[in-house]
Amino acid sequence: MAHSKGQIMTKETTKTSFQTFENRGGPAHTAQRITQLRAELKKKKLNGFIIPRADEHLNEYVSAHDERLLWLTGFSGSAGIAIILETKAAIFIDGRYTLQVQSEVDQNIITPQAITQTRPSHWLKQHVKKGMSIGIDPKLLSVANFETLNEALEQKQARLVSMPNNPIDTIWQTQPQKPSSPVIGHPKKYTGQEPAEKIKQIQEVLKNKGADAFIATAPESVCWLFNIRGQDVPHTPIMLAHAIIHARAKPEVFINSDRLNTRAKDHITCTAKLSAPENFESSLKALGAKFKKVLIDPDRTNSAIYQTLRASRSEIIRGQDPISLPKAKKNKAEIEGMKSAHERDGVAITRFLYWLSQVPKDQPITEIEAAQSLENFRYQTGALKDLSFETISGAGPNGAIVHYRVSEKTNRQLKQGELYLVDSGAQYQDGTTDITRTLAIGEPKPGMIKHYTMVLKAHINLTTAFFPKGSRGVDLDPFARAPLWQAGLDYNHGTGHGVGSFLSVHEGPQSISRRSTVPLEPGMILSNEPGYYKQGAYGIRLENLILVKDPEDITGGEHPMMSFETLTLAPFDKNLIDISLLSKSELKWLNTYHRSVWKTLSKHLKGSEKAWLKTATAALKL
Amino acid sequence: MAHSKGQIMTKETTKTSFQTFENRGGPAHTAQRITQLRAELKKKKLNGFIIPRADEHLNEYVSAHDERLLWLTGFSGSAGIAIILETKAAIFIDGRYTLQVQSEVDQNIITPQAITQTRPSHWLKQHVKKGMSIGIDPKLLSVANFETLNEALEQKQARLVSMPNNPIDTIWQTQPQKPSSPVIGHPKKYTGQEPAEKIKQIQEVLKNKGADAFIATAPESVCWLFNIRGQDVPHTPIMLAHAIIHARAKPEVFINSDRLNTRAKDHITCTAKLSAPENFESSLKALGAKFKKVLIDPDRTNSAIYQTLRASRSEIIRGQDPISLPKAKKNKAEIEGMKSAHERDGVAITRFLYWLSQVPKDQPITEIEAAQSLENFRYQTGALKDLSFETISGAGPNGAIVHYRVSEKTNRQLKQGELYLVDSGAQYQDGTTDITRTLAIGEPKPGMIKHYTMVLKAHINLTTAFFPKGSRGVDLDPFARAPLWQAGLDYNHGTGHGVGSFLSVHEGPQSISRRSTVPLEPGMILSNEPGYYKQGAYGIRLENLILVKDPEDITGGEHPMMSFETLTLAPFDKNLIDISLLSKSELKWLNTYHRSVWKTLSKHLKGSEKAWLKTATAALKL
Repeated sequence: MAHSKGQIMTKETTKTSFQTFENRGGPAHTAQRITQLRAELKKKKLNGFIIPRADEHLNEYVSAHDERLLWLTGFSGSAGIAIILETKAAIFIDGRYTLQVQSEVDQNIITPQAITQTRPSHWLKQHVKKGMSIGIDPKLLSVANFETLNEALEQKQARLVSMPNNPIDTIWQTQPQKPSSPVIGHPKKYTGQEPAEKIKQIQEVLKNKGADAFIATAPESVCWLFNIRGQDVPHTPIMLAHAIIHARAKPEVFINSDRLNTRAKDHITCTAKLSAPENFESSLKALGAKFKKVLIDPDRTNSAIYQTLRASRSEIIRGQDPISLPKAKKNKAEIEGMKSAHERDGVAITRFLYWLSQVPKDQPITEIEAAQSLENFRYQTGALKDLSFETISGAGPNGAIVHYRVSEKTNRQLKQGELYLVDSGAQYQDGTTDITRTLAIGEPKPGMIKHYTMVLKAHINLTTAFFPKGSRGVDLDPFARAPLWQAGLDYNHGTGHGVGSFLSVHEGPQSISRRSTVPLEPGMILSNEPGYYKQGAYGIRLENLILVKDPEDITGGEHPMMSFETLTLAPFDKNLIDISLLSKSELKWLNTYHRSVWKTLSKHLKGSEKAWLKTATAALKL
Repeated sequence: MAHSKGQIMTKETTKTSFQTFENRGGPAHTAQRITQLRAELKKKKLNGFIIPRADEHLNEYVSAHDERLLWLTGFSGSAGIAIILETKAAIFIDGRYTLQVQSEVDQNIITPQAITQTRPSHWLKQHVKKGMSIGIDPKLLSVANFETLNEALEQKQARLVSMPNNPIDTIWQTQPQKPSSPVIGHPKKYTGQEPAEKIKQIQEVLKNKGADAFIATAPESVCWLFNIRGQDVPHTPIMLAHAIIHARAKPEVFINSDRLNTRAKDHITCTAKLSAPENFESSLKALGAKFKKVLIDPDRTNSAIYQTLRASRSEIIRGQDPISLPKAKKNKAEIEGMKSAHERDGVAITRFLYWLSQVPKDQPITEIEAAQSLENFRYQTGALKDLSFETISGAGPNGAIVHYRVSEKTNRQLKQGELYLVDSGAQYQDGTTDITRTLAIGEPKPGMIKHYTMVLKAHINLTTAFFPKGSRGVDLDPFARAPLWQAGLDYNHGTGHGVGSFLSVHEGPQSISRRSTVPLEPGMILSNEPGYYKQGAYGIRLENLILVKDPEDITGGEHPMMSFETLTLAPFDKNLIDISLLSKSELKWLNTYHRSVWKTLSKHLKGSEKAWLKTATAALKL
């Protein structure tokens, strides 16, 4: 194990690398590639083309094959959409990417637009003329987005044209292959439930909704239902496959059987019909031929599927993916797995924190070195399957960029007197983790301590909340914000997202935010991650995962109340806590939490690491 | 002024009576009148008829002329809808009226239904047969409700038939006349703004929405826009009149000119065209003839208006009444008026509380006597125009009935060792009040003290909240509930409603509840009224009105934050407060509040009343 800067940088100790730090994107090729695309569009008699960052499954993470927006424009963010017309071009991004897009695309060629101010549909209405044909790849747009764009064009008497072959794929000579990773069966000790039971449950939901079938387009849903996992995209252990769940017949799963290991094949063939991906379309058409009522989730279904269903006369029912809710409510085996994963991950985090504490003042490490070291400690658990996302490793002002990605270009030293924010997670077979800690490098300044303590209060206030059955994310979000609002502070992101079980680190339907109207239910796992960001100076975010517990009676109370159990195990940086700002009950929570961190993790540690944890988790006293 | 039981009951001292206590409703006539209605329906070839509790303006309070549901069924609640078919009849009520409906209607004839479990549209679908004709009075159903019922009947191949004359009016021999109260101009010292300015503001909104006209159906909107007030319904100083607000021409107001005093006539004729009510329909038709785009609020517009607009080919735009938002944001004059009204009302409340404290233990008064006494103290201010709603005067278990109406039948003594809940308000020319206090009669029991203190914590937690621009009622609601949730308690109603300025005590668009998505804005006035209800024992509710203040900088903070200023002035019952349950800052708020009550009210009081207030507001110490 590596304690000093020199050691951890050698290839021998860094055994694995689920994250790269190269300068992705950039404006070098924007002009040339957009020219190429325009020539291709001309051949196809199109006046424009729309390029979202998306794959056929509308996933958050996409495979290299689907990085068309990055290839074309140079923009490497995780969300965006470009519209290329004959003489004009725009790229629409959200507030996270305002600065990044400016450095990554050639602004002489393509104009960045803040999507909250100018929707792509509005921009189209301004720039499109009567009679124009604007192309899309219908597989890369959700039904909901397709309809918005289509309506905008119809208003201008222009047309949205669905292209069977994506023109980018035609001109992109070096486009990587579609992924086709091995698919493995996920054992029952982790899933707690056989596919047959799960399928039955979903079929009941379909019958209640009056649907004959559901088109499962989200790979996480297919993975959960059949207890299988893949490696088609980074950081989420999924394979890109569709399924049709029939209410009264065996499901159909569309995947090449040679990708499946024995257990995966078992899981599917015992309960479903295995079919090659190229049969998906004819199966969709078959539904229409029988006038079936078909449930789709308009936010997760691409418009090619929708068009096929409509053309073949299916009756469409729109609704939320019925698999997402049971998937979000973790069963006993999944909860136990998540707890084991967090114990393992907590040990890796603790070793990393100790390692950081030992970095010599005069030999500061960099953000990349810190991220590599953390990955290495996780790798040394022997159970790491992937990172659950690219580690956000931000020192000083980089910590204030909420979705910061460290690259060779942005890499910064962890300097004395600055804060370091590290938001990271791991994929283990038994569970997915996501944790953020903010640390003082050297002596922190009073403002840092005040802001850290306020964020900690926000975190504690949510973690210790009691709430009745039926409470939704929107009802819980103010618990975290109230202490910050009281001090004139706030953060410009949601408070918590759902987390999958060896699946996506961002999962619905639940979340904790001002928009979330899904009731929280026992077994759901969410993040609790309030923050504070001082532009150009530092960022603070404190994140643990929390499990929604069953309603419990409260002494003297009348309504059983739900509450949270904290899963994440790692100390908070006591150098950044001003206990005079904490209430008695907040201090009590902190000490109790630290005691449980010590109790659970210390048995896995030895020597100076163990001694460090003892100090780090020792009770604070008023 | 009356201090003892005997005195306040004499007609001489009770100078006014805006509230009656007779046993309204009851099942005596249900059977006979429903039989009469059925005979009438047969003549008109209808298989059924739908009777909502409503007037043409869909007001909360209706005039005696519009109490058709009460007359027909005997149900006297403030919300409900009956459906009478040839052999079946049902009445749909919400949770507030579950018990009351059972005692008021003849259940052999008409079956009560909980509206949250069985919607009228669902019940209709179950009981209506193909080809049936079900009548409605289109003037009494909102567009939204009409559409729901119509769709339900169409699914059963039955018809919803709009009756030009309401069959109830035909058979109701003793139906009171339509109200036609005098209408007065409301002076600028209270309104702070001339009608001309207000109209201009609304016309700008209409132009921005692309609307040529708005149909102002809510009488409060018409009253606010033209600075006029009436007395057509109890408790809300409105007249029942429609107006059409044209985006580019003078508004039309439909009211008989002989009802207007000079100032009211001035206010209307200087800015608008005055027209008789019988011209309203032809003006609606004239809009259609010119293919105008007409904005309507589907929740506040009756379907007769909608049908007239549609039939005459207007293009309908649906949206919120554009008058409601500016009306809700009080200007300086309105805020000053509300403050004067609360100072005046606070004196009356204080005198009432002192009077209550002097009632001899062995001669307990009743709920009716207490309500009369309170009204009398308000009357003695010389400024009382009306109560803003019927005083909820509930002793012991009656306090646990959230919308309790005291009548001769339910009247109860205020007994030693019980709690007394009094929720009341006044209409003064300068403002509308709404206050709830809960009092210990004699020695309170420990459970009462604990529950009272928890509700007080809830009240304080909301009152002291800071929140950023854009925060909505749903974001503030958890502030009040959190302390109760933490103790396993909750209340089954919203936390706060908007309050008008010498207008309706319940006004939108803002509110504080889990459903409210309207951002709070400076100048809005809301109630803050968390509660606790122990069925069969007691109820606790603590209500002050609060004003949304402009965003202010907070020392050390970065975002200016909005907050509340409390308008209501009256002591909380210190006998019911366990200070060991209060945090330091909660206790500080309570003492500061009591100090301001003393400071503002004491100058209006003398002798024993003043001495009592001094004690009642003296600081509590840990």
